[in-house]
Amino acid sequence: MASTQTSLSPVDIARTAALASRTLKAVSGGDRNAALTAVHDALEKSKSVILEANQKDMEAAQKLVEAGKMRESLAKRLFLSQSKWEGMLEGILEVRDLEDPVGKVTLATRLDDGLDLYRLTCPIGVLLVIFEARPEVIANITALALKSGNAVILKGGRESTNSFAAIARVVSEALATTTIPPGAVQLVETREDVSALLDQDQYIDLVIPRGGNELVRHIKENTKIPVMGHADGLCAIYVHHDADESKAVKVVLDSKTDYPAACNAVETLLVHESTAATVLPKIASALLEAGVSLRCDSLSKAALQSSTLDAAKKVILQDSTEEDYNTEFLELTLAVKVVSGLDEAVLHINAYSSGHTDAILTESKEDAESFMNRVDSAGVYWNASTRFADGFRYGFGTEVGISTNKIHARGPVGLEGLTIHKYQLRGHGQAASDYGAGKKSYLHQTIENVEI
Amino acid sequence: MASTQTSLSPVDIARTAALASRTLKAVSGGDRNAALTAVHDALEKSKSVILEANQKDMEAAQKLVEAGKMRESLAKRLFLSQSKWEGMLEGILEVRDLEDPVGKVTLATRLDDGLDLYRLTCPIGVLLVIFEARPEVIANITALALKSGNAVILKGGRESTNSFAAIARVVSEALATTTIPPGAVQLVETREDVSALLDQDQYIDLVIPRGGNELVRHIKENTKIPVMGHADGLCAIYVHHDADESKAVKVVLDSKTDYPAACNAVETLLVHESTAATVLPKIASALLEAGVSLRCDSLSKAALQSSTLDAAKKVILQDSTEEDYNTEFLELTLAVKVVSGLDEAVLHINAYSSGHTDAILTESKEDAESFMNRVDSAGVYWNASTRFADGFRYGFGTEVGISTNKIHARGPVGLEGLTIHKYQLRGHGQAASDYGAGKKSYLHQTIENVEI
Repeated sequence: MASTQTSLSPVDIARTAALASRTLKAVSGGDRNAALTAVHDALEKSKSVILEANQKDMEAAQKLVEAGKMRESLAKRLFLSQSKWEGMLEGILEVRDLEDPVGKVTLATRLDDGLDLYRLTCPIGVLLVIFEARPEVIANITALALKSGNAVILKGGRESTNSFAAIARVVSEALATTTIPPGAVQLVETREDVSALLDQDQYIDLVIPRGGNELVRHIKENTKIPVMGHADGLCAIYVHHDADESKAVKVVLDSKTDYPAACNAVETLLVHESTAATVLPKIASALLEAGVSLRCDSLSKAALQSSTLDAAKKVILQDSTEEDYNTEFLELTLAVKVVSGLDEAVLHINAYSSGHTDAILTESKEDAESFMNRVDSAGVYWNASTRFADGFRYGFGTEVGISTNKIHARGPVGLEGLTIHKYQLRGHGQAASDYGAGKKSYLHQTIENVEI
Repeated sequence: MASTQTSLSPVDIARTAALASRTLKAVSGGDRNAALTAVHDALEKSKSVILEANQKDMEAAQKLVEAGKMRESLAKRLFLSQSKWEGMLEGILEVRDLEDPVGKVTLATRLDDGLDLYRLTCPIGVLLVIFEARPEVIANITALALKSGNAVILKGGRESTNSFAAIARVVSEALATTTIPPGAVQLVETREDVSALLDQDQYIDLVIPRGGNELVRHIKENTKIPVMGHADGLCAIYVHHDADESKAVKVVLDSKTDYPAACNAVETLLVHESTAATVLPKIASALLEAGVSLRCDSLSKAALQSSTLDAAKKVILQDSTEEDYNTEFLELTLAVKVVSGLDEAVLHINAYSSGHTDAILTESKEDAESFMNRVDSAGVYWNASTRFADGFRYGFGTEVGISTNKIHARGPVGLEGLTIHKYQLRGHGQAASDYGAGKKSYLHQTIENVEI
């Protein structure tokens, strides 16, 4: 792994990555896996050096926290604990052991005898991955990129500079012993480097920002390179008139409180007007007990105030503003609103939701189908927590991130999202002008047993 | 179909399309097909009105041709001949009769008993399609958009304004009798409208330019919306040392002369140094007889000059410049270059090719595989003409265009390229916090018989 210490300019870094990518595209799956083993083993051997570097970052962070210049939660994320270290190492082997995403035949058509068309998955090319402080992410991204045959340029948060540099050095030395070309994994360290890299659309094929809204928005506004990811995760749950009370309480509570800072946590609760006095008080009671602040519109507040909810809980109900329905709280706060039914719920969600994951709670299959058809989000759920929106939970084995894009990949993205395809045509000297009216016809038969 | 005559601003047009798209996403395949039938029948009934409008465009074009302000080839493309008219109408029914690209289950995983995950294809949303003069294209794009459940904003070349407006009016009236929402198909008429639409990334999901390099480049440089298509079609063929002579002559001749103005015509011929004096003269002779100008590097020219090629043909050989290897001629001109072997050919192609379609002519499976692996283009061919790069020839039934993008769709794009997916999760009130260490485990079983 080269770093800017080798004094390459951002253009040179991008060009180097593009050249490495060409070679990497032809490296076999076995060789890519061997590289991941080498990286894993090298990191394992270099534990003390890397943890020492992490200690330096932690000491610097501690000073900033004490000076009030850094949140303690950020400092925590910098810390490479024993369990994070082990998870990082295991993660590399887990990615290694996934099915090879490259070279899969996704279409095979016999155009004519001796003229066979195949569509095969292949790496995209060069990825620019921008992430924040957590040092273990660098190993995860390196593993994903190499497994999928992509070259990658990495930029981590500056708070973890020492950790990143130490890990990068080890990875670089490990890759030098393998068939992976140098330049396949490069680290850049400054914001200025990133700005310059965002202009390199001739060399970089995809930008993946892994971080908060601001980071993602800033990147989307400053590059012509496709960006895969999501800014907001503004998820909603709609409680239909026939929702099962216990399911509703359980699913809403889990969606809000299981991990409030996650992008798949629920931020808006819509309830059918007929449930405002029945199911809503039960949900509200459970949420308030879990420490959730409820920001209610006038109808839901009125319903809760005249319900059997404890007086102590009624006191802490808050009034919502329009802004609350546009807010990804990322904490124990939930906006609540009464709607007249399914149509209004769908309209609200399509207008306010960020297209990440939205759920309906209902016992009606017909209404659930309608909701799932009409809500235009990456995930549409029926009687399940929004927190399931996750690549590991979906069974992808790994996750690059969650995309709300309308093209390429949408929803949790695994290794498949880091591939594209190419068409191979295997002939025996055929000309296109051999075919047509009064000439040969195309067969267009599916090839059943692909052997190439 | 609304047109700017209804005086909507570009922002309103985009917003209208986005709203229509939401409704259209829930319209059944049967209803979408019925709409295509209605459009077909209405156009058939309005033939005389539309051909009269086309006559107006032709008269205006004729004056411009006479004044030397329009090429005659462009005027020809404007003309809605009887065969084009019939092809246009048949095309609508052909698209209608293709398999519904929407609602296909592309992944089905049982996360746990009673917790089933499905990935279904769905429309992208709103397309902005910008095309040039040919009036029949508007019907084709309308059919593709409706079949795939997408709303579309159309901008055709101004030379066909009367034809487009007449067709648009008929389509609009036909759709008003169906379940397709008004606003699903809109026509804009000015370049200023397009410029403003390219800013509407909150409403428009994909831009598809169907036209020449300049149009595509201009659009890519002026929008943050993803653009699907290709600028150049700079295709190359490499003749390996063991290429079969008759295959080589046939494939190169077809690739260059079958339709020289097409994006999949060959523009660069690379020949192994050992074939420069053997196979190259045969290829050159056939090409020169077909009227192709050969722009040769010094090695290929020297080899041809000392070959048995007719003296009359030797005289018309031209010298190539570096620029010729970067040029999409789109006419009967071919750049020729001698390379030392497979490695140099791959290097040349990856450096100069536009990533559209490139071919190797060889009898060696091993070398063909190496070429197809290492050349980073949408199409990599072995012993077949580059002219096969086409959605119809690939068996897709229709073609939106050919993409050289590295994400979403690459190569000839059919209806599949106009869809994305969403994830449906169908549960019974499960919480994500039910699962994990010491709790329930995920099954992650493939669901074999999907019934939803």
